[in-house]
Amino acid sequence: MTTTSFDLYPVGRVARVREAAAAAGLDALLLTPGPDLRYVTGYDALPLERLTCLAVPAEGEPFLVVPRLELPAAQASPAARLGVEFVAWDETDDPYALVARRLGPVATVGLADRMWAMQSLRLRAAMPGAEQVLAGTALRGLRMRKSEAEVAALREAGAAIDAVHAQVPGFLKAGRTEREVGRDIAEAIVATGHATVDFVIVGSGPNGASPHHELSDRVIQAGEPVVVDIGGQMPSGYCSDSTRTYSVGEPPADFAAYYEVLRRAQEAACDAVRPGVSCESIDAVAREVITEAGFGDRFIHRTGHGIGLEAHEEPYIVAGNAEPLAPGFAFSIEPGIYLPGRHGARIEDIVVCGESGGERLNLRPRELVVV
Amino acid sequence: MTTTSFDLYPVGRVARVREAAAAAGLDALLLTPGPDLRYVTGYDALPLERLTCLAVPAEGEPFLVVPRLELPAAQASPAARLGVEFVAWDETDDPYALVARRLGPVATVGLADRMWAMQSLRLRAAMPGAEQVLAGTALRGLRMRKSEAEVAALREAGAAIDAVHAQVPGFLKAGRTEREVGRDIAEAIVATGHATVDFVIVGSGPNGASPHHELSDRVIQAGEPVVVDIGGQMPSGYCSDSTRTYSVGEPPADFAAYYEVLRRAQEAACDAVRPGVSCESIDAVAREVITEAGFGDRFIHRTGHGIGLEAHEEPYIVAGNAEPLAPGFAFSIEPGIYLPGRHGARIEDIVVCGESGGERLNLRPRELVVV
Repeated sequence: MTTTSFDLYPVGRVARVREAAAAAGLDALLLTPGPDLRYVTGYDALPLERLTCLAVPAEGEPFLVVPRLELPAAQASPAARLGVEFVAWDETDDPYALVARRLGPVATVGLADRMWAMQSLRLRAAMPGAEQVLAGTALRGLRMRKSEAEVAALREAGAAIDAVHAQVPGFLKAGRTEREVGRDIAEAIVATGHATVDFVIVGSGPNGASPHHELSDRVIQAGEPVVVDIGGQMPSGYCSDSTRTYSVGEPPADFAAYYEVLRRAQEAACDAVRPGVSCESIDAVAREVITEAGFGDRFIHRTGHGIGLEAHEEPYIVAGNAEPLAPGFAFSIEPGIYLPGRHGARIEDIVVCGESGGERLNLRPRELVVV
Repeated sequence: MTTTSFDLYPVGRVARVREAAAAAGLDALLLTPGPDLRYVTGYDALPLERLTCLAVPAEGEPFLVVPRLELPAAQASPAARLGVEFVAWDETDDPYALVARRLGPVATVGLADRMWAMQSLRLRAAMPGAEQVLAGTALRGLRMRKSEAEVAALREAGAAIDAVHAQVPGFLKAGRTEREVGRDIAEAIVATGHATVDFVIVGSGPNGASPHHELSDRVIQAGEPVVVDIGGQMPSGYCSDSTRTYSVGEPPADFAAYYEVLRRAQEAACDAVRPGVSCESIDAVAREVITEAGFGDRFIHRTGHGIGLEAHEEPYIVAGNAEPLAPGFAFSIEPGIYLPGRHGARIEDIVVCGESGGERLNLRPRELVVV
């Protein structure tokens, strides 16, 4: 178990989820361990091969199918407050048949978006008449709009990753490898209170031009920019994610020029956040600044992604997403400029949409830090 | 990227995987980020919402569909050695349609066992004529039989987690909470060379009777047994997992009695490992010792699980699994005895089946450690 606030995982949520399932035309949600299950119940179940599955029928009572050896863990979890029946199964039982039997005939079931094929295909076999769709169909509207307690949890995560970035200048030295720096960062992610290390990207020199580069044995050289994009999950379940670009000694002149373009683009996109503005228009704001400066074809990814119980979740800040922002939406704003074979830069903050504008949850300086 | 040995992820593996797919009657495997993809290619792709998918047709050439921003990461990965075509997609493309179009008509596809529903349902929609089964159908035979390089990687993981257990007596003190101890352990898991912390179970007193308890704010008391079950993933991709039970001060007399039963059961099961012996009979060996001593109904889970690129994978050491052990099979042997409301104990080593017997990869003392 991890720290859980009743505010963060309110008991009333399961009723709202049921209504959302009915409104989406689903007869039941089937939620295996992962962010959907945790959102609904607060239960941070281990994602393992033994089936744990919360069934939330649109009509009828929810029940949690759980391996017997995890029954005490489930009983000790916030799920125990929900008045949901726990149905334990033994090592040699068939838990998929158990779910199907208890649920009865259903036409459409919503599966946790991250349910493993190992489970979805077995549920399909056990319930051959049920059409499977994504639980996200019903849950996305709820999960995108963070409550005050969720925003507080994201703020705490933001402060924790900021505390790691504050230490990064001490880790970055010419002559060290990305992996050595990455290990220091991973230890700091844990030491600042994260429950898990989700990703550690240290992209030095040309590796900085690969947005999802992680770590390599490349030795960092003097005069090189280094992209550091890091995040983890807090005991609350909520995630951090922040990028800063550093330079080990004075950077090349061409880098300094586009870095300032990037900084302005990121700031403009953050300033554009308010309710009613579409996700794609936030993307467009960042892209326009970069394109006008002549780097449009070097900004090769969307501007951001939602964040909450998942490091990446809806809403995506991308062309084609007309979803209007609403209070409680939390997402990254992280434009980048990448010069293949040379270097790259990215600046990323988590931003929460408030009633009249955005609140940045990452507050480390955005000017280039030369270490 | 993480450390990768060409021995660990040999180039010839993709051809063997293709043969295995054909032999299992599959027209293609579709592998998203996770252990199946890593096993086949060595590519440790980030498990995110943008589709990365290796298609391995039983006939025809494999190809890797990859988000353009991750193309450099894929090109820098061991997958680049395989001569597999990389097909990049842009942020506003439909990568599911792309997979379907490139693959052409297929009757049966094997999905990575851990593929998210988000992906499997979209692939189903894009390929409505294809029956989806688990890739494990084709891969399990290959993945269960570890190569020498894989065993070496597991041995390295075992030594790393042993080094953490060596520090645990220094962390365990009456008056500390499970969570405080857990944080020290998590930091040690990273410091001993793991890339990620997979789980940290610190079950003190009555929490030790909940096999999958993780961490709580319970304060450890003098005279209490504490179950510590910990593991992580090494940069190689291979996992560690080992349990020891400690006592903070002298334990209750009834505990000491059953702990010795448990120690004998675990040892007997380890001693029974050799090629040709069934998984279920290893389970039976441990269970018999415990049952004879009168604690049969207190050993409420199977004896073990396979381990490799996943912390839990096939083969499962459980009643009903008649699979005979073969050289290279790697799995946990971890019987437990649990007295609800009082305390519990578990001892776990990873064991590899060799030509004539088992090799334990965890070597910390199995006698009760009183700290």
